[in-house]
Amino acid sequence: MLAHGSGGKLSHELVSHYLIGVLGNPVLNHLDDSAVLHLDGKLAFTTDSYVVQPIFFPGGDIGKIAVCGTVNDLSMCGASPRYLSLSLIIEEGLPLEDFEKIIQSVKNATDEAGVLIVTGDTKVVNRGSADKIFINTSGIGSITPGINISGHNAKPGDVVILSGSIGDHGIAVLSKREGIGFNTSLTSDCAPLNHLVADILSVSSTGVHCFRDPTRGGLASTLNEIAKQSGVGITIEEDKIPLRQEVLAACEMLGLDPLHIANEGKLIAIVDESCAIAALEKMKANKYGRQASIIGRVHDEKPGRVTMKTNLGTIRIVDILTGEPLPRIC
Amino acid sequence: MLAHGSGGKLSHELVSHYLIGVLGNPVLNHLDDSAVLHLDGKLAFTTDSYVVQPIFFPGGDIGKIAVCGTVNDLSMCGASPRYLSLSLIIEEGLPLEDFEKIIQSVKNATDEAGVLIVTGDTKVVNRGSADKIFINTSGIGSITPGINISGHNAKPGDVVILSGSIGDHGIAVLSKREGIGFNTSLTSDCAPLNHLVADILSVSSTGVHCFRDPTRGGLASTLNEIAKQSGVGITIEEDKIPLRQEVLAACEMLGLDPLHIANEGKLIAIVDESCAIAALEKMKANKYGRQASIIGRVHDEKPGRVTMKTNLGTIRIVDILTGEPLPRIC
Repeated sequence: MLAHGSGGKLSHELVSHYLIGVLGNPVLNHLDDSAVLHLDGKLAFTTDSYVVQPIFFPGGDIGKIAVCGTVNDLSMCGASPRYLSLSLIIEEGLPLEDFEKIIQSVKNATDEAGVLIVTGDTKVVNRGSADKIFINTSGIGSITPGINISGHNAKPGDVVILSGSIGDHGIAVLSKREGIGFNTSLTSDCAPLNHLVADILSVSSTGVHCFRDPTRGGLASTLNEIAKQSGVGITIEEDKIPLRQEVLAACEMLGLDPLHIANEGKLIAIVDESCAIAALEKMKANKYGRQASIIGRVHDEKPGRVTMKTNLGTIRIVDILTGEPLPRIC
Repeated sequence: MLAHGSGGKLSHELVSHYLIGVLGNPVLNHLDDSAVLHLDGKLAFTTDSYVVQPIFFPGGDIGKIAVCGTVNDLSMCGASPRYLSLSLIIEEGLPLEDFEKIIQSVKNATDEAGVLIVTGDTKVVNRGSADKIFINTSGIGSITPGINISGHNAKPGDVVILSGSIGDHGIAVLSKREGIGFNTSLTSDCAPLNHLVADILSVSSTGVHCFRDPTRGGLASTLNEIAKQSGVGITIEEDKIPLRQEVLAACEMLGLDPLHIANEGKLIAIVDESCAIAALEKMKANKYGRQASIIGRVHDEKPGRVTMKTNLGTIRIVDILTGEPLPRIC
């Protein structure tokens, strides 16, 4: 109900029973206007609003993705995610059981990632002014001294490793959309990648140059961003990219390029050649990196451009997404 | 357009031209998944999503309120606000000139508060799935050692100071609502209060026990929260509470209690008796505290309860809001 967002009695009930009851911890329970934290040194700070539609999809829901997405954004800077905020915009009429399921997913994902929700906000808008629920999570992570990970740091000679198959999230969500639903056994790859990142960094703190998770815009857009930020060329090999048969089939049916489809539990690691094999082995030993594969190389030809050696033996330009084939994928 | 939220070419254009162009700074311009910051010691961390309707109102807009609200939440913990995130959920079809106005307001408010937008996110949802634009800002502030401000710290004998007139924001927004619009010269009090907080703390770092800004739920709900958190009673005097004639008139017309109406540029300071007069003088010297007034006392009778000596000489219980007279006020 609208009154749950009023700041009055129903707001208090919603917060104390459904939020503190599930997500409570000593910092959150304090319920001041801000959480008070003790942190030192280099920090990472990130934010994301999640508007995924439908809010429940195979392999996850908007609560899980809201935690994993922000945990992953912090991890991609080489940070250890520590504290998250949780801000909810709820459409009047959202069933309470859906709300409870989502908050439980938030709890499960924060437990797996080892982070705490320390501050939050709840707004309720009238029916028709939002679509069920939108969630913003912001996060703070701590960066160990000596770690310097950035999209600007890819260097010619570096090796590009992808942690697993692409397109699973986008196609899983799409399969449940009204109007275009289709049957598939595919589930979203939505997962917190901070432990995988820690495993890779354990190989070398200086040999890992760049992490990035290929979410909106897919692998193609992410590689293009890195190529531009670092002023390098990147060439990948099509036959090295893990791709599930279901994703390939759905993409062919819908006229989509798997390189443009969103992922929520995959990362690209760009590492010095000297530690590529060790990093790959570490990734394969982690449950979120079992299918990890070296997919390409960084070089100094055509800075800012990404190319792919196709299965046919040709070279094609891999461009970033134009238009919007899959709105509200996260 | 939906494609502005795709992560593809139009997203890049929106971010680089309209966001970085106006809000850019060395941290934000880096455009990694997280901002990397250097901070030490005790930090405050807060989040708020803003869904105010209409998005433009007398004295402000959703961009200004999104910055001020989060700056104020940090300030109410005694923190100096430093870094903000900005996450936008935009309804397809929002006119670009409205978007530009809002981002300019964000810029003006961050400049006044002396904070930087360091990380952000933009989502676009289809028409009818949001209401023009929702904004989440999260923020990080640093807390000077020795400062210990919390809603739990009010003590019997403390003095309650209010920084100015109540209800201006709520009534100003309400005056522009479709269906209930009325003419008034009133403007929202929406303002960043961090400099006012610094002025008050300059009087005494230990004599100030509690700050709180009476936003949603108004002065009544905020005082009740403090009374409960601190386990104290609070008594205020009706004739000491600054109240504009326009607010009083609108409240009488609409059957609302000014004590329940939201403010966006006011604070309550609960301070040790010994520094109350000095704090009051400091507040009056700041443009956002000119009408500051000592409105009541903290005591040990009926812990958790707020009472008011009315203008008629009677005592009445001041309760928190039930129901929702003013949805989407912030």
